[in-house]
Amino acid sequence: MEKKQIMILAALVVMLAIIVYLLYGETQAGVVANGDLLTPMAGDGLLLEELQFGKNLDIWFMLMLVAFLMIFIKKYEWGVALAVLLSAAASFVVYLGIQQFYFDEAWNQALLIRAVICSITVVIAIGVFLGTVRMWQYLLVGVGFAFVYALVEWLLVQDLGFGTATDPGGSILVHMCAAYFGLGVALGIREKRAFDEPMYTTTHSVTFVWLASMLLWMLWPSFVTSLQPLENITWGTITCYMAGIGSVISAYAVCMLCQGKVNPLTYTYAMLCGPVAIGAPLLSVGPWGALLIGVIAGAVSALCFIYLQPWFCSKIGVLDVMGVHNLHGVGGWMGAIFVCIAVGSIASLGMAVIVFALTLITGAIIGVIVKLTRGDIDGFATDDVDFIKNEEPVAEA
Amino acid sequence: MEKKQIMILAALVVMLAIIVYLLYGETQAGVVANGDLLTPMAGDGLLLEELQFGKNLDIWFMLMLVAFLMIFIKKYEWGVALAVLLSAAASFVVYLGIQQFYFDEAWNQALLIRAVICSITVVIAIGVFLGTVRMWQYLLVGVGFAFVYALVEWLLVQDLGFGTATDPGGSILVHMCAAYFGLGVALGIREKRAFDEPMYTTTHSVTFVWLASMLLWMLWPSFVTSLQPLENITWGTITCYMAGIGSVISAYAVCMLCQGKVNPLTYTYAMLCGPVAIGAPLLSVGPWGALLIGVIAGAVSALCFIYLQPWFCSKIGVLDVMGVHNLHGVGGWMGAIFVCIAVGSIASLGMAVIVFALTLITGAIIGVIVKLTRGDIDGFATDDVDFIKNEEPVAEA
Amino acid sequence: MEKKQIMILAALVVMLAIIVYLLYGETQAGVVANGDLLTPMAGDGLLLEELQFGKNLDIWFMLMLVAFLMIFIKKYEWGVALAVLLSAAASFVVYLGIQQFYFDEAWNQALLIRAVICSITVVIAIGVFLGTVRMWQYLLVGVGFAFVYALVEWLLVQDLGFGTATDPGGSILVHMCAAYFGLGVALGIREKRAFDEPMYTTTHSVTFVWLASMLLWMLWPSFVTSLQPLENITWGTITCYMAGIGSVISAYAVCMLCQGKVNPLTYTYAMLCGPVAIGAPLLSVGPWGALLIGVIAGAVSALCFIYLQPWFCSKIGVLDVMGVHNLHGVGGWMGAIFVCIAVGSIASLGMAVIVFALTLITGAIIGVIVKLTRGDIDGFATDDVDFIKNEEPVAEA
Repeated sequence: MEKKQIMILAALVVMLAIIVYLLYGETQAGVVANGDLLTPMAGDGLLLEELQFGKNLDIWFMLMLVAFLMIFIKKYEWGVALAVLLSAAASFVVYLGIQQFYFDEAWNQALLIRAVICSITVVIAIGVFLGTVRMWQYLLVGVGFAFVYALVEWLLVQDLGFGTATDPGGSILVHMCAAYFGLGVALGIREKRAFDEPMYTTTHSVTFVWLASMLLWMLWPSFVTSLQPLENITWGTITCYMAGIGSVISAYAVCMLCQGKVNPLTYTYAMLCGPVAIGAPLLSVGPWGALLIGVIAGAVSALCFIYLQPWFCSKIGVLDVMGVHNLHGVGGWMGAIFVCIAVGSIASLGMAVIVFALTLITGAIIGVIVKLTRGDIDGFATDDVDFIKNEEPVAEA
Repeated sequence: MEKKQIMILAALVVMLAIIVYLLYGETQAGVVANGDLLTPMAGDGLLLEELQFGKNLDIWFMLMLVAFLMIFIKKYEWGVALAVLLSAAASFVVYLGIQQFYFDEAWNQALLIRAVICSITVVIAIGVFLGTVRMWQYLLVGVGFAFVYALVEWLLVQDLGFGTATDPGGSILVHMCAAYFGLGVALGIREKRAFDEPMYTTTHSVTFVWLASMLLWMLWPSFVTSLQPLENITWGTITCYMAGIGSVISAYAVCMLCQGKVNPLTYTYAMLCGPVAIGAPLLSVGPWGALLIGVIAGAVSALCFIYLQPWFCSKIGVLDVMGVHNLHGVGGWMGAIFVCIAVGSIASLGMAVIVFALTLITGAIIGVIVKLTRGDIDGFATDDVDFIKNEEPVAEA
Repeated sequence: MEKKQIMILAALVVMLAIIVYLLYGETQAGVVANGDLLTPMAGDGLLLEELQFGKNLDIWFMLMLVAFLMIFIKKYEWGVALAVLLSAAASFVVYLGIQQFYFDEAWNQALLIRAVICSITVVIAIGVFLGTVRMWQYLLVGVGFAFVYALVEWLLVQDLGFGTATDPGGSILVHMCAAYFGLGVALGIREKRAFDEPMYTTTHSVTFVWLASMLLWMLWPSFVTSLQPLENITWGTITCYMAGIGSVISAYAVCMLCQGKVNPLTYTYAMLCGPVAIGAPLLSVGPWGALLIGVIAGAVSALCFIYLQPWFCSKIGVLDVMGVHNLHGVGGWMGAIFVCIAVGSIASLGMAVIVFALTLITGAIIGVIVKLTRGDIDGFATDDVDFIKNEEPVAEA
């Protein structure tokens, strides 16, 4: 047995000691801890809690699917899955620590949901700078992001003088936050070499992207209604699906009109822009208004993938690897604008501007930290993690 | 910027104007719209509504999986996903328009569920004539089908003199409707060249078929119980799974007995025939009766794939591309027959005959319209939509 | 038409006669049967029943995903899916028969959940000896296992003199049972040739493993809380996810520290060991204790995959094909130990020892029966079932 393994075993023994202590400790305060930390429930509260159980799992489902939405780059395939798991794990646990120890929050389904929404936000964000950081740094980014997200979440319910923002489905809190935090990190890292690496795909890996996108689309109502009271859930389901239907159709139309072909890596993302943009005006419009929002959002997002991205990336000098900005950034702004029109107040747009600035700056700070701790890396192609494979010597037939 | 793009931008501006108007309009009538359009809920009604939320998403899940059930044809791969999305979107929104504006229905989870069931029915139907129409025509088929489905749905609850049909789980409403509407369209199009095109598969694309089929199987109880009152849901779950277990076993037995091998594209479909056939007798049999129904259905469906399909297709002169008739047509008839035996009335079988004729005729009419608006097409191989790919020049290792 | 097909048709006619009889019989006793067999529900009982509906489907989802967790071996690909379906179907239906006719249990969601948990346990177990039995023998194993599982389940709630075991999430009932029953069968079969067969993978088949593992991880709270009363569900969700987070991080750390690389077929399994080990102490620890349990479990499981498996397999003389013991066996023991620490009683560990011995012995008996009825088989490579393929002659680009 080598030295390294002995160290690992030693670390395990230490942890075992800690666990024995903590288990006894937590049991002492004890199973009571359960009673103490948990909010008591009854009647409709109980029904809501149990309904949230399902949505909690659905959002984790969506988080995992985001990995498969990004898995198409041939060399990076499994690294994406690992990066998603690590950044989600780090942000989840740190966010919960912040909520329990700083905000004194009780542990319940709603808190778990808020934590997984924090995690899915950072998972979306890493799509911007995928391939330019080391694998362990996804843990670092996750930890840093948990603080940023807790701040943004707190900020969003404050009245900053122009009224309170309306954002039941996370257009601002999740999507803008993801896009601009991600761009912030990319700006902090400034990895030019990412531009030079071709992103080859395989037919089957793109089939996983179709699967992930289609399942994300159908799971979306769980996400946008997850923290709503019972009486809003049906309405949120209606507007979310109607917006999704709109972008399924309009994204196809724009792809065909502009390119005469369909780029799956444009279409499968742009068809999700209706659900992104309906987040803020979720409960402020009717079904047909939601359909129109979806039509606009899908069209605009597809146009951004086709025309805006090359110009935008060269302008800001960093590559948005997965085109996160075209879906989540642009969709988030649209959500903020549409809700302002619908409710006749500019509060949401004002808050969107603040979130934009805040996440860009904090992202850039974390990006700089990442760059300083990263060491040398060989541009985009680097997986950093080597995976052990056992493929047959001859080429697959 | 080219002329085409300017036109698109112009169209977007126009739509933006419409949306501003509609958002204001819908807000005026307003968030009230919400209150107006939505059925109020309380007590068990509230519980049912929230339970239906999960089933609504599950049925959308199934709809997306149907795409992956059909994704195995190498050249057609992603086109199937796009065709599914477009036909689902068109039928969903038109069906909801019909229900709101013609039938004066309130928007609630049950209405959304009825709409997605309409969409999944047309998505099954397109499997019959996949590859013989242009991509945009799936929108056309979806629009036409929404009217047909609304009619069939209305018809099915009428008493036409021989009693009311029993079909809680959609053997007739969904599966027969899908199979014979699809065959009707194929008969209207009469694309002989479809016979000549080999349908090559790849190992991995067939793995997606296994995944889709296995997940459809496990989601089925959500589908058959989605519109049932609370007290029937457990019973429907029991009979649905027991029927599914039956066809998992019998389809395997028939494949091995008849061919000595298992054709995955027979087995993965035939193992779903129990759940198809239990739709009508869902609440009229016990668990062991359901198991037997599943055994029979799985065996008969597998036999149809192996022996009936070649004869049947050459007889009617059109190719049932995905063998929709062997699963949904045959399974639907079995459901209608079994429920007649179980409840001792021929009402369901009588209604099945009417649905059969009605969907075949309306399907053929839409098929003729499709043929007239289709223009020239190069037989089955045509994807119509070209997808943009970025695969590495050298063959995959 | 050949003789064989005539026989099949004859069999179908016979079955049709049986079904007509049974349907009438079950209808006579009848739709009443429904009322008779079903437990009446109201209030919170109704809410629990409906919540269990969703969990029932989630566990079936997990069962199907276990197939994709094992689908990476190139030659065996679809055979795994078929083996999973057949062993699940056989055990499900036999277990339900045992419960209805021997234990006089009522049919409800809880019974269905117990049946699918029985099935998922045997599905995990077959991972030990995959490729060493004939396809139809998975039916045989499923039938035999249903009896073993019903016995273990009954035993686990008895007080054998050292108190009652605590195992709400199945560390002992499911995971130990799966691992040692599987090893028992493998010991009964003693197929040495399995060692000599290389297990080649393909990039895309391993991507399915990632998908399956990540979805299993997120579905786990449904599994561990499926039979809990309403007030425990949130707490079980909290500890389950916290334990999962722990092993996501620690399994990565151990892979990198020990091998400098990540073996996906180690990582994707070891990251599930937190949820396995939290099963027993699910409701006896707080969130941070659960996190630590997950950290330990993920690390230990990864170490077992890397160091224990080769030694262990050569020692006992059989190959644990999927490393079931490193995840479920080891994780189960850890769960039993952790809950003993947490609640200050050795009852669970005592019961774990009994389950270990019982499943190993009964597994070995069934293994011997399998060997006797198996006939000649060509070592591990044998698919037994040949699948019909229709791949294009030329190699895929």
